[in-house]
Formats: sequence, C-alpha cells, structure tokens
Amino acid sequence: MSSETVQVIDTALLPRGFRAAGVHAGIKMQDFKDMALILSDVPAAMAGVFTTNQVKAASVKLCRERLAGAHGRAVVVNSGNANACTGEEGLRDARRMAELAAELLGLEETEVYVCSTGKIGVPLPMDLIEAGIHDLAEFASENGALDAAHAIMTTDTTAKHAAATLEVDGQTVTVSAIAKGAGMIQPDMATMLGFVMTDAKVAPAALQAALLHAVNESFNRITVDGDRSTNDTVLCFANGEAGNADLTEEHAQWQDFVAALKAVTLDLARRIVMDGEGSTKFVTVRVSGAASAADAEAAARAVANSIEVKASWTGATAAWGRVMHALGYSSARVEEGRIDIFYDGVAAARNGQVANGSADELSRVVSQSAFGIDIHLNLGAGEAVIYSCDCTEDYIRMNTY
Amino acid sequence: MSSETVQVIDTALLPRGFRAAGVHAGIKMQDFKDMALILSDVPAAMAGVFTTNQVKAASVKLCRERLAGAHGRAVVVNSGNANACTGEEGLRDARRMAELAAELLGLEETEVYVCSTGKIGVPLPMDLIEAGIHDLAEFASENGALDAAHAIMTTDTTAKHAAATLEVDGQTVTVSAIAKGAGMIQPDMATMLGFVMTDAKVAPAALQAALLHAVNESFNRITVDGDRSTNDTVLCFANGEAGNADLTEEHAQWQDFVAALKAVTLDLARRIVMDGEGSTKFVTVRVSGAASAADAEAAARAVANSIEVKASWTGATAAWGRVMHALGYSSARVEEGRIDIFYDGVAAARNGQVANGSADELSRVVSQSAFGIDIHLNLGAGEAVIYSCDCTEDYIRMNTY
Repeated sequence: MSSETVQVIDTALLPRGFRAAGVHAGIKMQDFKDMALILSDVPAAMAGVFTTNQVKAASVKLCRERLAGAHGRAVVVNSGNANACTGEEGLRDARRMAELAAELLGLEETEVYVCSTGKIGVPLPMDLIEAGIHDLAEFASENGALDAAHAIMTTDTTAKHAAATLEVDGQTVTVSAIAKGAGMIQPDMATMLGFVMTDAKVAPAALQAALLHAVNESFNRITVDGDRSTNDTVLCFANGEAGNADLTEEHAQWQDFVAALKAVTLDLARRIVMDGEGSTKFVTVRVSGAASAADAEAAARAVANSIEVKASWTGATAAWGRVMHALGYSSARVEEGRIDIFYDGVAAARNGQVANGSADELSRVVSQSAFGIDIHLNLGAGEAVIYSCDCTEDYIRMNTY
Repeated sequence: MSSETVQVIDTALLPRGFRAAGVHAGIKMQDFKDMALILSDVPAAMAGVFTTNQVKAASVKLCRERLAGAHGRAVVVNSGNANACTGEEGLRDARRMAELAAELLGLEETEVYVCSTGKIGVPLPMDLIEAGIHDLAEFASENGALDAAHAIMTTDTTAKHAAATLEVDGQTVTVSAIAKGAGMIQPDMATMLGFVMTDAKVAPAALQAALLHAVNESFNRITVDGDRSTNDTVLCFANGEAGNADLTEEHAQWQDFVAALKAVTLDLARRIVMDGEGSTKFVTVRVSGAASAADAEAAARAVANSIEVKASWTGATAAWGRVMHALGYSSARVEEGRIDIFYDGVAAARNGQVANGSADELSRVVSQSAFGIDIHLNLGAGEAVIYSCDCTEDYIRMNTY
C-alpha cells in the first residue's frame, strides 16, 4: 500500500483511548477557542519533529526535553501567544502549564507536553492559561477533537483534520491528526502545529523514524512565505489501544502504517497551503532531472519561494521567464539551454526558450485554482516536489502592522 | 578622503570626451525612450561586473567576452526587452547591435558593448532596434546623459544619475554614472543596469578592482525583492581625457578615486531602493557582533529579504519578533539570549526579549519614510549593512499578471 492509495477522511476523529477538548480561555479576542488538550488514557509512545529555527519557543524546548523519554500522555496547547523570545520566564510558564495539567489529570509532569502559537515576545497570561487548563481537564471527551482543532487555529480560516484507518494484525488501527497553518500574521504570530494520534502499538524508535519520514514528505514540502517559525512542532502519540503486535520496521504491515501516516500528514499539509494567508491558488512545483536530489529540492524551493513567481500566480500568465530566473539564482546547477518547463503538461519553455503556440492553453492552466509546474533540468536523476501558493495583495495587507 | 565625505551631485553629467543619447525606438509603448548610447571619443579602459545568475542574457554573455580586452568605446542599451532565454538567435541579435553601432560610429565591433533590460523570453524586434541605433548615432552629444538615463528605465519612476569630481595630479577628474533599478515587473522584466563614466586615466586591472569593490559596497548591498536578475550589469569607462598620470593602486590619490567611485555608485544604489516597486520606506539593516563578516551579511540579508519583515515595515509597529525569527532561520549563528535590536537607536529587544517602555518611540521611528535597524548579535566582530525597502500591496499588484 502506498500513501497515494490510502483513503483519507476529512474528519476530526479520536482513535481508541484518546480524549480531547478545546476551550476559550480569553487569550484570543472575542469568544474564539484558544486552548486545547489531547489526552491518552494510557501511556503512549511519542515522537516529535520541531522547527530548525535557532530561535525556539519555550514550548519547543520543553517538548524536546520530554521526548528524551519517548513516552507521554497529554499535550496542552494554547493559541494567541507563542511564548517565544520570553526567556527564563517563558520556560517557567511552559513548565507550569505541564505541572498544572498533570496535577488535574492525575499524570506525571513528564508525561505532559506543551505547545504554544501566536504572538512572539509577550509573556503568557498565566491566570487565563491556568483557568483554561482547569476547563480542559473538565471537558476532555471522546468527542473533543473538533473543538481541539478549532482551538489551535490562529489565522487559519478552517479547522484542519484528517484520518485514515488500516488493518494491522486483524485489528482496525486509526491514524488521525489535527493541524494549524501557516503564514505568520499579526505582530509576530508563529506558525505550524500538528498532532497525530494513533491507537496502533508502535515501538518508540520506529515511531520517530516514521514521523520524521512523513513530515519530510508533507509538512516540510510546503511553503507559504518561505519563513520557518520559532514554534513549528509535530507530535505523534501511539497508545497501543488497537491491540496489534508491536509495529517496528520488521513488521509485515509496517509500510502500510507509514503510508497511512504519510497520507494523513500530506493531506493536512496541502490543506495548510490551500488556507495560506491571502492565497487563492495551490501550485505544485516539481523538479526532475536535477544533478542530485538536493539540487532538485533547492531548485523547487527557489521557484516556490520567489515572491515574483508567487505574485505572478495570482494572474493568468505563465510567467516562465521568472521561473527560469529563479532557477538561475538557486544553488542548484542548471544549464539554461537544457531547461524545459510545463504547466499541467503544456509546454511553456523548451531548451530554455519559449515553446511557441500555447499561450491560450497556458493561460487556461494558470487561471485554475490549482495547477502544477513541471521543470525538467535534464542534467541527472534528482527529483523533488514542493507545494506552494500564490502571494496576493491580501497577504501583504494581513501582514501589515 | 572616504566615500562618506565625497560630495555627490544629483545630475546627469558627462565627463570630458563622452557623448550620449537616448531615443524612442518603439520597443516600449507610448513614446517612452527605450534605447541609449554612451560613447567615448577615444578608447577607454573598461571594467564590468555582472549578475551571478546562471541564466544570463545574451548581452551579458557578449559583454563578458568583450571585457577580455579591457577596453572599449561605446555601449548600446535597449530597454523593454531583456534578450534573455532567447538562445542562439539572442546572441546573434546582440552581436548585430554591436556590429551596426560600430559601423555607424566608425569603431571596431569589439569596442562596442551591448546591454538589454525588459521582458524575458521574447526575441528582440531587430527592425526597431536597428532604426534606433541609427538615431542614437545621429543624436549622440555632450548633453545626452539625461536622455540616456531616461532611456534605460523600465519600471523606475525617476531617472537615476549621480556625479562627483576630484583633483588628481592637479587635474579635475569627473566620475559620473547613470543607473536603472530594481524589482522585476511585467511578465519577466529584468533588473539592474549601471554605467559609470570617468575621464580619469586608470589602468584596466586597477579599474576592474575598484569597480568590483565599489559594486560590492553599493549595488550588492541593496535588496528590493531578493531576486537576482538575468541581466544585471555594471560597466565602467575610463577614457583618460582628464590628463592625469595613470591611476593604479600605487598612485597617491588612488583611494580618493575609489572613494568617489564608491560614493557615486552607493548614491545610485540608494536611489534604486527608494524607487523600488511599490516601496514607501527605505530601511538600513545593520548587523554587528556576528561571529564572522559572512555571518553578519547572511543575518542582514535574512532580515532584509523576509517578506514578513518587509510587509511589517509598511505599518507603524516595530515587529522585532519577526526580526528575531528571520535571524533564527538565517545561516548565521545566533544565540537568542544575546540578541539586541534597536530602531534608530531605540531599544526594541535586549537579550532576545522585549525591551520595555519604548512602544511609542518605536512607533514614531517606524512611521518615518527612512529608518535604520541595528542588530547586535554579541558573538564576535562581524559587521554588515544591507539597504532594503518595505513590501507593499502595490508591489504585489505591479507583479501580478
């Protein structure tokens, strides 16, 4: 089973043995939910992937510390405040969140993870946070996933959730996830959070390897504005309640599990791009024939992150010259005279020059709300794909303060 | 004499022994001038600096070939068409431009340089170009610098020119330059051209070294949208008509000449940023205390190119959290807890956290049409400065097709 054949359901589903909640603690304005809890009834194997930004939120530091044990029971999340660039006070606040949740839920403090997303550089309003944690502990239920998905949103316009099921050792296993996107907003809002829950029994080291692989093929393939946040975090809980034999790389159905994990995270990653700030178009940039895989990725990222290229996507012209230009300044080796560029299979450039006779067809492709750009460098076997979106006047307006 | 003390005059001035012209050949719409000629009455020492983009316009390839001789008499320029991604035909067209100009002006073909700027991927309209070259040869005059400055414009809203004079060996030497900016526009318009003319006598190798130094401290310090064009070219003519002794690094007044060259190019570079597409603010990003000069430059460029940071400048909030975020993902080594950030001397962050009590002052600074951000990494002695501008909704609108 490959990830392409996994059926992903657009629903906020909790696997067996999970509860969740989302409440309004008052960190965000109006009555938007701004705190979430995910809780496993039994200790779960844990895996995590974090931002590579050198400036890390307090919650990221705490999660990395917790992950040394590779197990956990719960994660407490707040939106509206990133608890980043907040120094020792920020770290103390993150620890207090875990401590209070542990106390109220009857867990060890080291079993509780913490995530924050929102404004950078402002101390957490701990009175509101603590009241919120009391509410979360009270309201956690088997039906709480959608509330949790709403509570982690910042500038997202839709809650993001996805789930898939598979059979392992004759048991039905569920892989479910919620996420929030993408694009920084307001004076210094931070970015991506993803929480994956499964009732599969998975060995911790294998779970970490699977999550890393899935994230590399999903959340790490998307770009809204080319910036990596101080808070990006993906956590995965595997609580074993499905009753399968321990999943490791040696298990006959290991690849099925990895495919399900990848399909669910890729589905959410695509939703994040589609819901990027101000974005109106979803664009898949594929590079093939690069001298190496690293070159392919560098070339695809240069195209997918170029503000000029992204601005051109809001219109209806295949600005292939800007694509050439971005390829030329990327760190990937390119030879101008070998480059072919296609928009949904329609040739825009061959051998680095205009491919005549397809202007109307190209306009039709680029006018769609989703299309693909295929770039053949014709130098080797390196391939990469990056999912991107256009950059509109709305994006600038949303990021102006 | 340092470049800061050189008095730069905002005028389109030709040094002794230079003529110029700017005409409307019909490549651009309406009656905008779109072809320029700069001509030295005698063979001049030549230097040149070109784009590092791997995709290079035909004119760039031709200029690099010509520069092997380090001498020249003229440059023919067209705007409205970049003659890039045009293959063998483009190279033949560029050669034909030089050949025709040489024939009409009584020069060797190898003495004529060619530059193009404008739309990528479209063959030059050679009938219009050839008629334009006839007009340029006819109209070249000692008063033609302003016409030439206008003729090289693409999306520039103002013609850009600067000049300075100095005494060398008792003779008055003029260093004069015209340039065009910055920011790609329309389906695939290419970017920066600069032409420096001096009547100083300068040894070719020394001239190349001086130009490279000046460009590194000026045109290479600016960013409008982080993209490097296929056509960026700076050419420098030194025709010796001032009658000074040959300027080399050993000459007593060498540093004065370099300072004048740097002051003129820096003045033009700043004008290009101030006239960036849609930009309303000029921002000087200074990084000090980096672990190395390369780290300082990487950090300054990350901040100056971040679309989120640039979008924030259009408002009136010192979004220092976004600056932290950009520093964190730059390739420069940073330690969050050591970073201090100042806006025109007003502290926004100290030790990586908010510097309390200055919100009104910071708003006042950021509301100005020009301000500086000073970032102290407190790790070493590396320093760098980058000149940038804000990214507005107008930029996106201008780049949408």
